[in-house]
Amino acid sequence: MQRILSAQLSEHVHEKVAIAGWIHRRRLLKSVAFLIVRDAAGLSQVVVTDPATRAQLEQLAEESVVEVTAVVTANPQAPNGVELTGPQVRELSAVGVPLPFELHRPTLTAGLPAQLDHAALALRHPSRAATLRIAAAATAGFRKALEAQRFVEIQTPKIVGSATESGSSVFRLDYFGRPGYLAQSPQFYKQLMVGVFERVFEVGPVFRAEPSDTARHLAQYTSLDAEMGFIADHRDVMAALTLVVRGMLAEVTARTGHRTPEVPAEVPAVHFTEALRIAGAPPDEPDLAPAHERALGEWARREHGSEFVFVTGYPMRKRPFYTHPDPGRPAYSNGFDLLFRGLEIVTGGQRLHRYEDYVAALSAAGEPVEAYRGYLDGFLYGMPPHGGWAIGLERFVARLTGLANVREVTAFPRDLHRIAP
Amino acid sequence: MQRILSAQLSEHVHEKVAIAGWIHRRRLLKSVAFLIVRDAAGLSQVVVTDPATRAQLEQLAEESVVEVTAVVTANPQAPNGVELTGPQVRELSAVGVPLPFELHRPTLTAGLPAQLDHAALALRHPSRAATLRIAAAATAGFRKALEAQRFVEIQTPKIVGSATESGSSVFRLDYFGRPGYLAQSPQFYKQLMVGVFERVFEVGPVFRAEPSDTARHLAQYTSLDAEMGFIADHRDVMAALTLVVRGMLAEVTARTGHRTPEVPAEVPAVHFTEALRIAGAPPDEPDLAPAHERALGEWARREHGSEFVFVTGYPMRKRPFYTHPDPGRPAYSNGFDLLFRGLEIVTGGQRLHRYEDYVAALSAAGEPVEAYRGYLDGFLYGMPPHGGWAIGLERFVARLTGLANVREVTAFPRDLHRIAP
Repeated sequence: MQRILSAQLSEHVHEKVAIAGWIHRRRLLKSVAFLIVRDAAGLSQVVVTDPATRAQLEQLAEESVVEVTAVVTANPQAPNGVELTGPQVRELSAVGVPLPFELHRPTLTAGLPAQLDHAALALRHPSRAATLRIAAAATAGFRKALEAQRFVEIQTPKIVGSATESGSSVFRLDYFGRPGYLAQSPQFYKQLMVGVFERVFEVGPVFRAEPSDTARHLAQYTSLDAEMGFIADHRDVMAALTLVVRGMLAEVTARTGHRTPEVPAEVPAVHFTEALRIAGAPPDEPDLAPAHERALGEWARREHGSEFVFVTGYPMRKRPFYTHPDPGRPAYSNGFDLLFRGLEIVTGGQRLHRYEDYVAALSAAGEPVEAYRGYLDGFLYGMPPHGGWAIGLERFVARLTGLANVREVTAFPRDLHRIAP
Repeated sequence: MQRILSAQLSEHVHEKVAIAGWIHRRRLLKSVAFLIVRDAAGLSQVVVTDPATRAQLEQLAEESVVEVTAVVTANPQAPNGVELTGPQVRELSAVGVPLPFELHRPTLTAGLPAQLDHAALALRHPSRAATLRIAAAATAGFRKALEAQRFVEIQTPKIVGSATESGSSVFRLDYFGRPGYLAQSPQFYKQLMVGVFERVFEVGPVFRAEPSDTARHLAQYTSLDAEMGFIADHRDVMAALTLVVRGMLAEVTARTGHRTPEVPAEVPAVHFTEALRIAGAPPDEPDLAPAHERALGEWARREHGSEFVFVTGYPMRKRPFYTHPDPGRPAYSNGFDLLFRGLEIVTGGQRLHRYEDYVAALSAAGEPVEAYRGYLDGFLYGMPPHGGWAIGLERFVARLTGLANVREVTAFPRDLHRIAP
């Protein structure tokens, strides 16, 4: 018999059907037993009165995998108004050990370390699985919104030959006997690919060996990168990004039903100098601290009714060498961050596009041009004005779901202390 | 003036428009000059008669980036029946060095090593860009076909704590002072996630430190992975894969116009023992050599009119420890390969799903169970019968386009000798 899903049961009242899934919970009462079976679509209630089946159930612990053949019976008290009666239960995979924590309660009571140690089990809890579905929907929405704007998907190397790009630490590896490094971002490659497709995006892992043991740092995270050519300046990038964030949220709601905030037609944008003033920070601060970002988030909600706010014009000295300066105020950049509910979730901006400007910027930064040879090649051979951004998927989903720790929205997180499972 | 694309010119005859792109070619004739501008959508022809603009063009080398404002004029001899006349040319980025090779000829005359050394330039050639568009379309088709079958996208760790899974070599790295390894596949993680979503897929980089210097090996490639639970055996996996390959090819044709072969309703499938016979190999061969795969490809085309053929039932001793045996012939497996035009492009099969079977298989392979602790956890806590596959994106696209070397369909390949650009 062809298996159906729990969500399809109500279309089959009075019919004999087969379902399959995990034993989410057993309730062995005196005269009747209830079996709750969990599948990818939800839960089903099975009513057991037959003594042989009840005896079988007594041996089948929670999380055992079973196939249940039974009749669909209407019962307004049951989940979705239906339950399964007169079941035959076939064991597909039995659990023979105690579970480290229970999965059938509305929330997982196990602490985060225990959940991460037993991720394969913890992720089965509907609340954990739901956040990963949101991440998948957000990623699909990212691609969809970009493809609608002519962006082409690329795949770029995660092993690179020089540890360049930023001050933060990189993972070193042995590449066939010579040093290699894990890419901290697809930055250089996506810029080079603007020379090929004008507009490109990549969804992929990036690696940071920063020894930051916080609720928002991971050693590997998923970066949603895009880069676009033929822009006037960073504001064209912000306009494209606004459409993309709106598309991501729309896809989350469409696929998961999760309520998402509105993205205003024009997301409020404040210059860095103004952001310092709003946040009550001294005017000579070189960057925004987390408390400043929170203050800006509150300001945007209060003054503009927006959960999102752009901060533009960060000081050049705090942005990477490839950042394009503001032509009118060269100490400030055409770089921006997008804050979502008071947390930076996107960094972007306009980049340099002329070879001579790269040589000058690297020289000013005291960096050897030779280490950037493959990267600079594209700029020797003609590149249009361009810019782009990177969204941290885990931070985005954590902010959207209100979860405090990015580890709660990552299936198998990697951090300073954790390399397994 | 808002820029339009080359492909939109014919909608604007008699109008003044702005286009932008790279100088693909200049033809400086005696009384007139032709400028061919390349953008993401194709080529435009610009006719220059004005002496000042001609003098400007003489200084602007191929691949310089320009914006051209001009009038769209019908000319049946010009590409797409239109050309641009009376142009004003604005330089966005000038090229000041000779190009290492020309881009304006129908095929790239530079050898592959030169193309790879200057990938940022070579990929701009329409033939190279076209194969990467095919790769992007195939990837999009992969996701679309899987989402239509309820598969959920996942992201899994690329850094792992033990060098397990297969005999081939792994890249070692320093993970915060302890040993780490680059994942050779998402195999274990996608299996664990069957316990969460039943059906999952991942598109991501995998890493192989195999010192194989061939036309079909890369140190990093893009793996299109899927895994599905509640199967009867490997044939359910083959049926799902058949739909996916058909969806990939349909998306390639829809997005790029590239002609793709038909995937039969039922792709021919031969057992390994039969495959040896067809290929004329001795019956005690443990695996198929490339020549055998080619012979099978010819057989499938000749006997079944199919560019695709499944080989099932590979010997257990040649498949990884997690492979499910054929219950009727335990020396053979429920593992399969899919050959496309005589080359293996997909490996898949049914996996073990019971904890005891894993312990026995690891013990038989002489492997310590402890190294697989995080992986085995999922099987301790109940897993359904399941299976899946991995498609090598670069091999798939190379086979589809008839290109001999996977490096020709990879933007920035990594191999034994190459770690840059």
